Amino acid sequence: MEDSTIQDLTLLNSPVDQISHLAVDIGGSLIKMVYFSTNREKSVDKTQNNSSKDNLLSGRLYFLMFETSKINECLDFISSKQLHCRGVQHHGFPASDKNTIKATGGGAFKFADLFKEKLGISLDKVDEMSSLVSGANFLIKSVPSEAFTYVNGQRNYEQIDHNDLYPYLLVNIGSGVSMIKVDGDGKYERVSGTSVGGGTFWGLGKLLTKCKSFDDLLEMSHQGNNRVIDMLVGDIYGGSDYLKIGLTSTAIASSFGKAVSEDKELEEYRPEDVARSLLRMISNNIGQIAYLNALRFGLKKIFFGGFFIRGHAYTMDTISVAVDFWSKGEAKAMFLRHEGFLGALGAFTNYQLVEEFPCTAGHYNRNPLVEDLNDNGIIECCLRASN
Amino acid sequence: MEDSTIQDLTLLNSPVDQISHLAVDIGGSLIKMVYFSTNREKSVDKTQNNSSKDNLLSGRLYFLMFETSKINECLDFISSKQLHCRGVQHHGFPASDKNTIKATGGGAFKFADLFKEKLGISLDKVDEMSSLVSGANFLIKSVPSEAFTYVNGQRNYEQIDHNDLYPYLLVNIGSGVSMIKVDGDGKYERVSGTSVGGGTFWGLGKLLTKCKSFDDLLEMSHQGNNRVIDMLVGDIYGGSDYLKIGLTSTAIASSFGKAVSEDKELEEYRPEDVARSLLRMISNNIGQIAYLNALRFGLKKIFFGGFFIRGHAYTMDTISVAVDFWSKGEAKAMFLRHEGFLGALGAFTNYQLVEEFPCTAGHYNRNPLVEDLNDNGIIECCLRASN
Repeated sequence: MEDSTIQDLTLLNSPVDQISHLAVDIGGSLIKMVYFSTNREKSVDKTQNNSSKDNLLSGRLYFLMFETSKINECLDFISSKQLHCRGVQHHGFPASDKNTIKATGGGAFKFADLFKEKLGISLDKVDEMSSLVSGANFLIKSVPSEAFTYVNGQRNYEQIDHNDLYPYLLVNIGSGVSMIKVDGDGKYERVSGTSVGGGTFWGLGKLLTKCKSFDDLLEMSHQGNNRVIDMLVGDIYGGSDYLKIGLTSTAIASSFGKAVSEDKELEEYRPEDVARSLLRMISNNIGQIAYLNALRFGLKKIFFGGFFIRGHAYTMDTISVAVDFWSKGEAKAMFLRHEGFLGALGAFTNYQLVEEFPCTAGHYNRNPLVEDLNDNGIIECCLRASN
Repeated sequence: MEDSTIQDLTLLNSPVDQISHLAVDIGGSLIKMVYFSTNREKSVDKTQNNSSKDNLLSGRLYFLMFETSKINECLDFISSKQLHCRGVQHHGFPASDKNTIKATGGGAFKFADLFKEKLGISLDKVDEMSSLVSGANFLIKSVPSEAFTYVNGQRNYEQIDHNDLYPYLLVNIGSGVSMIKVDGDGKYERVSGTSVGGGTFWGLGKLLTKCKSFDDLLEMSHQGNNRVIDMLVGDIYGGSDYLKIGLTSTAIASSFGKAVSEDKELEEYRPEDVARSLLRMISNNIGQIAYLNALRFGLKKIFFGGFFIRGHAYTMDTISVAVDFWSKGEAKAMFLRHEGFLGALGAFTNYQLVEEFPCTAGHYNRNPLVEDLNDNGIIECCLRASN
C-alpha cells in the first residue's frame, strides 16, 4: 500500500498503467468520478481459485471531483486521459462496451447528449438512490477503517459487524439531502430528505460572504464565531439558562436571530462569523431531521455521506452533537472516509466486477481545508471480468 | 361586536374606558402585549348566576406588538397609557397588585430591572411554555372562529370539538421554534424545537435584502419567485421528474442551490426572489420537523402559532403543503387568528379572571402585508374578580 492521491495524474500515462471502468455521479453542484487502474504489473495469487486467476486484475480505485458548472473541464479530462476507453485488453479483460460508462445522478439524464456528442459515449444510467446504497454498502463492508464516529474532535474508526449492519439510515448530503432506510443489499427506501443541504450552504454562503469556492467557505467557517450573529438562549433570557426545558444559555435559540435587532448591514459582519453560523444551522438541522427519521424506524446507526461533509471537523462535530442531543445518546452518527463518492462508487459496483474482499484503502492523509477538491484516498482491490 | 383595532388608541383615554390587567410576552425579537379594557359601561346580565353579577366586568382584550430592540418605546407607551395600573376600582374589582404585571418570555427575566426602574412595577414571571399552552387552549376553546386550515388559498374555519382536542402538537414560531405536545390544560411537554425560525427569516432576510422591517420582507417575498435561486429537481435532471422517489421536476432539490453555479453576486438577484426562497425554505423546514414530531406521538392536529406567520398566505400555504406532503394527508396544519399572542394571552389567563365563554372576537379584517405590527383583532369577554 502506498501513500498516493489522484493528483499523481502523470502516473496515468505510464505504459504499464491500464485505466478502465469509469463511473460518474453527476449531481446538481459536483461531478464525482471513480475509475479503476492497474497501476503496476502484479501477479494475482488466488491459490484457492486457480481457475479464475486469469480473469482477476489487481489495481486501484481513483477518485475525482469537478464542479458541474464546469462540466467541459471534466469532459476534456476524460478525453485527454482516455478514461472512457474502459475495455482495455489486459489479462483477458473484456473489451466490450467500450462506448458506454455507468452514470448516476440527475446529470446522467441532463448531460447524456453532451457525453455522446463530445466523447462519443453513452451513459448507462444507474438509479441515484440505488447507487448511493450500493456505494455505502460497498464501503462499509469491503473497505477497512472506512466508517468512524467523531467525538470530541477525534475520529474513532469502527469495526462494523456485517451481521449487525442492517437496518441503518443513510443520509446523503449533496446539494440537497436524501435520507434512505437501508435494509440490505439492494433493499432500501428513501424515507425523507430536505432541500436544506450542501447547495444551501454553498449557495447562501456565496451570496453572504463572496467566497470563491466551497473550501474557501469551509475555511472561513473554521475561523468564525457563530455567537456574533446567532441569538442564544442567554441573549433572550438575560444571560440565564432555560433549564426547565433543557436549554442552556449558550444554546442557539434563533440562527441569525441577532441580526434582527442589530443595526448592522451584511458588510459589517465578518464573513467568517456568517459562514460559521450558516454551517452550524445547516449541520444541526440535518442532524435533527436525520435523528427524527431514525427514530421513526428504530434505527440506531446513521451514516452520513455526501460532498458537504468533506471531513470538516466542525461539520462532523455539529452533526454528531445534534444526533446525540436529540436522541439522548440512543443513536450514533457515523461518517465515511469516501463520503462524497457513494453514488459514483455505487455506479461503479454496478459493473459487478469488484472481487477481492476486503479491499485496502490508501492512507487517508486528508486536510479537510485544502483547496484541492481532488484530494481523496485511493482503494486497492481486484476486479474480475464479468465474462 | 364592532369592527375595531387597537389602532384606535385615543379611545383608551375616554373616561368611561377602564384599562386593567396588562400581560406581556417579551421575546427575542418582539414584545407582545395583551390588556383588558372596559370600553363602555355595560350591564352584565348573568341571570343564571346572580350572586356573581357584581364581580363581572364586560370588556375587550386588546393586542399590541413592539420590537424588543425598541423596548423603551414599549415602556413609554405603557407609562403614557397607564396600562400597568391594572387594579382599577370598578364594579368591585380588586385594587391589589397594582405594581405587578404578568410577564412571560425570556425578556421577563432580562428586562425585569428595567420595568422596575422605569415604571416601578414588578414582573410576575409565568413560564414561557406554560403560557404558550394556556394561550393556545384559551383561543381554541373560548374564541369562536379562531382556528382554521389553509387550503388552496382559502381559510376554512374549524369547529373544534373540545372533547376531541387533545392531544395536539403546538408549534410556536417565534425567533426560534418550540414544539409542544399538549395533553390538556396545564398538561404538556416540549418535545422538540428548531433554531431555524422567525428570527432566522428576519435576520438572514435583513442581511440578504436590506429590508426595513419584517413586514417589508414579507411583502418582498410576496412579489418574488423562488425558482430563480432554488435548485429544482428538474434543474439537476435536465427537466425531468424523479418520480421513482416521488419528486416532480418542480420540487426544490436544494434551497439557494442555483446560486452555487451561477456567476452572480447577491446584488444581481432581485431581493424579492431571495426573500421568497428564504420564506419557502424556512416554512417548509418547520412544516417537516413539525410533521416528524407529530408522527412520533401519533398526533393528527398541529396548531401553528407565533409572530412569524402573521397570516401570510404563502407561509401558511407552504407549511400546510409540507405537512400534507410528508404525512401523506394524515396530519393537518391549523392556524390561529391570534397566532402571535399565545404567550401573552397565556400570561393573561394566569390572572385567572376570564369568565365568559365563549368570548366573541372582533371582525378580523387583517391585511397580512400591512406595515403596522399592531393590526390585530380584539376579543370581547368578561372578567371576574378573583376575590
